[in-house]
Amino acid sequence: MAENQKPLTPAFTNPPAEEAAMPHVVIIGAGFAGLETASRLGGKKVRVTLIDRHNYHLFVPLLYQVATAALSPADVAQPIRQILRRHDNIEVLMAEVRGIDPVTRHVQLAGLPDLHYDRLVIATGSVYSYFGHPEWAEFAPSIKSIEDARHIRARVLSCFERAETSRDPDEQHALTTTIVVGGGPTGVEIAGAIAELGRHALKRDFRHIDPQDSRVILIEALPRILNTFPEELGDYALNALEELGVTVMTGQPVETITREGVTVGGQLIRAGTIIWGAGVQATPAAKWLGVEADRAGRIMVGRDLSVSGLDGVFAMGDVAHTPDEAGKPLPALAQVAKQQGQFLGPALAANLLEGKPIGTFHFKNRGNTAVIGRHAAIFDFGKRRLRGWFAWMLWGFVHVYLLVGFERRALVSLQWLWRYMTYQQGARLITWSDGRKPEL
Amino acid sequence: MAENQKPLTPAFTNPPAEEAAMPHVVIIGAGFAGLETASRLGGKKVRVTLIDRHNYHLFVPLLYQVATAALSPADVAQPIRQILRRHDNIEVLMAEVRGIDPVTRHVQLAGLPDLHYDRLVIATGSVYSYFGHPEWAEFAPSIKSIEDARHIRARVLSCFERAETSRDPDEQHALTTTIVVGGGPTGVEIAGAIAELGRHALKRDFRHIDPQDSRVILIEALPRILNTFPEELGDYALNALEELGVTVMTGQPVETITREGVTVGGQLIRAGTIIWGAGVQATPAAKWLGVEADRAGRIMVGRDLSVSGLDGVFAMGDVAHTPDEAGKPLPALAQVAKQQGQFLGPALAANLLEGKPIGTFHFKNRGNTAVIGRHAAIFDFGKRRLRGWFAWMLWGFVHVYLLVGFERRALVSLQWLWRYMTYQQGARLITWSDGRKPEL
Repeated sequence: MAENQKPLTPAFTNPPAEEAAMPHVVIIGAGFAGLETASRLGGKKVRVTLIDRHNYHLFVPLLYQVATAALSPADVAQPIRQILRRHDNIEVLMAEVRGIDPVTRHVQLAGLPDLHYDRLVIATGSVYSYFGHPEWAEFAPSIKSIEDARHIRARVLSCFERAETSRDPDEQHALTTTIVVGGGPTGVEIAGAIAELGRHALKRDFRHIDPQDSRVILIEALPRILNTFPEELGDYALNALEELGVTVMTGQPVETITREGVTVGGQLIRAGTIIWGAGVQATPAAKWLGVEADRAGRIMVGRDLSVSGLDGVFAMGDVAHTPDEAGKPLPALAQVAKQQGQFLGPALAANLLEGKPIGTFHFKNRGNTAVIGRHAAIFDFGKRRLRGWFAWMLWGFVHVYLLVGFERRALVSLQWLWRYMTYQQGARLITWSDGRKPEL
Repeated sequence: MAENQKPLTPAFTNPPAEEAAMPHVVIIGAGFAGLETASRLGGKKVRVTLIDRHNYHLFVPLLYQVATAALSPADVAQPIRQILRRHDNIEVLMAEVRGIDPVTRHVQLAGLPDLHYDRLVIATGSVYSYFGHPEWAEFAPSIKSIEDARHIRARVLSCFERAETSRDPDEQHALTTTIVVGGGPTGVEIAGAIAELGRHALKRDFRHIDPQDSRVILIEALPRILNTFPEELGDYALNALEELGVTVMTGQPVETITREGVTVGGQLIRAGTIIWGAGVQATPAAKWLGVEADRAGRIMVGRDLSVSGLDGVFAMGDVAHTPDEAGKPLPALAQVAKQQGQFLGPALAANLLEGKPIGTFHFKNRGNTAVIGRHAAIFDFGKRRLRGWFAWMLWGFVHVYLLVGFERRALVSLQWLWRYMTYQQGARLITWSDGRKPEL
């Protein structure tokens, strides 16, 4: 549109007088932390602007289920406006942040005027890092966005299709091999889900691929998988993965990744699909602020989540390095982010409207979990531990419950139930995103 | 994969001896016609290869609901292999057809060896045509694929987002204006669905766009919309559209389409989104065969669906010009395609296995229908006509019933019921396909 070339005077910079008198909280990022902060400020005498690059909140813990064709993108994503629609004091802004001026208290936005804030909450999350090998990203995509998930789904299914038309056993073997790099919860969950997809899809849908040819290989550099879990649970998960037919290679750092496959211990393992689930790194918000960051790029914050040295700026979730009671950083988990939002929203309102101090954030561990296929999961509640089929049921219950909105819950439950019984993966569509259709 | 550079010897060219003795039916296209033909040949002593570019069957009549954020792609698409998995005599091949040699009876495939057939069924469907203005396609996409639908959904929603940040009333007005070109059933259905999306989304989700600013304009070159329906039903649909706030312009051929909008009667109407639903043209299968085509590019077939002059070649669905009893061509409708598949599948088996003649296809009109928003539809059964809320219910029932597979039916019913009651559009995600993210 030609009109878009004109300088904009957006509505949100020009609020009505009574609103303009309210303090303005700007939140960057509508993940668990940002969304929860915003929603806890709903209805308070505070003006809130929630900025995100996307128009939806993404339930990242279930994104791998989109990549493995069990769920559709709309099952794990919900429009931010819809979630917050009943709060008149909240504005949602789909925009790209370019920088922050903490002196004049402005957020710089692509193609829009700067936005002034009284309090700024940074909750921009994390991205995958390739340990100094950005060139691996092309061959080993990670799953952080809907586009990523759709891409990997299309890739896996296309490799099966290509293998079906081949009679070269080596080629079939390579095309039906999937390598997952990284033995954390994400890697374990993806490996388990792809093993099940392959096993059932290959057996029933294809005529010329032998399920025996198909492999899923999980590669972990450390001596054991799920190293943030107690060893007993990690061992259980390892057995559960091997029962699903996943080959687990531990203590094996990846040497190179190319179009052909992954090289480990000097050996090239050919694979049709390679998925990266290893290193995680904070988004570059520390650079916007010009403040200190830890090795993972996270902004150092106090136990009140404030960024030291900057007035009125807070950071939380995966982008923040938050010390716990012992001074150790809290883990990058959805439950940490969510609890931080639940803490900071009311605390900010009380601070702005009643002058109360922000106080101290205390993390309550709700249990750390990972799921392996359709029958097994592990839970670590600190003192108590849980594993097996009951843990899987609990995992399912918790995740469906946490999905935002009633409709999502009801439908996702039904879909899961149906697919659990029938082993159907309903969303097995090969559609490519972002012009990323590769040569297979 | 490097191995893919080697010449392939696909499985399907090398069937086991007992299968190789069976006659081989090759079907191109897994739309309603092709899929139905294949499934009616399931279990017969005939070898069937069903070729499609995609790995899924698309329920095109509901695709506009993906474009208007009411359904997800996986709600209207189902993996072809899954539909046909229980028929061992059917092979599904995801491949691109490059040409046909009717003399040696071979189908030429991209990147794969030629495929020999005993009987060939062409069911490649239709595409939109821009009346000699292919340059309009960039600004006025049509809805024929999942990628198209996702693109239009992202476009409409992004325009709302941009309008929300603007305070220039002219710009807001343009960004929240959608133009639909073509007043056939597709155009009417899209216009109604977008009017409802805009009306409800704008009112509840946005803070700075006035629903009064938003417009949907339906432009039809002929003197009335839905000209394949009786005038009485067309008039009813016109009123129903106007009640939803759609501006209907009839007798107005489009003059030009640019990035800015559509010019009609010398006047430029600015619009954020333009959707093309006007001309339809057959896919170029007549050129593959080197046979006669009608003005719309359709292959001329006899009443037995055979292509005259070619031995063992049949065409059906939108790509075929099939004469009815009176010699007039049958309309391009899903029900025609489906009935032709139901006819040709058993007829081919009887012909190949028992030497029976193919016989004559008779179309039974199940009723022609169009839906306008959430409360109104029209049905034309020939002698009987139906309109209004009851027609809408019937439309919903028929379409949900026709969706392949039980899971789809149950879930789509539930989703519809929920959204009907709440006016929520669950799939309002802005995700771009194919690198087609435009400058707005």
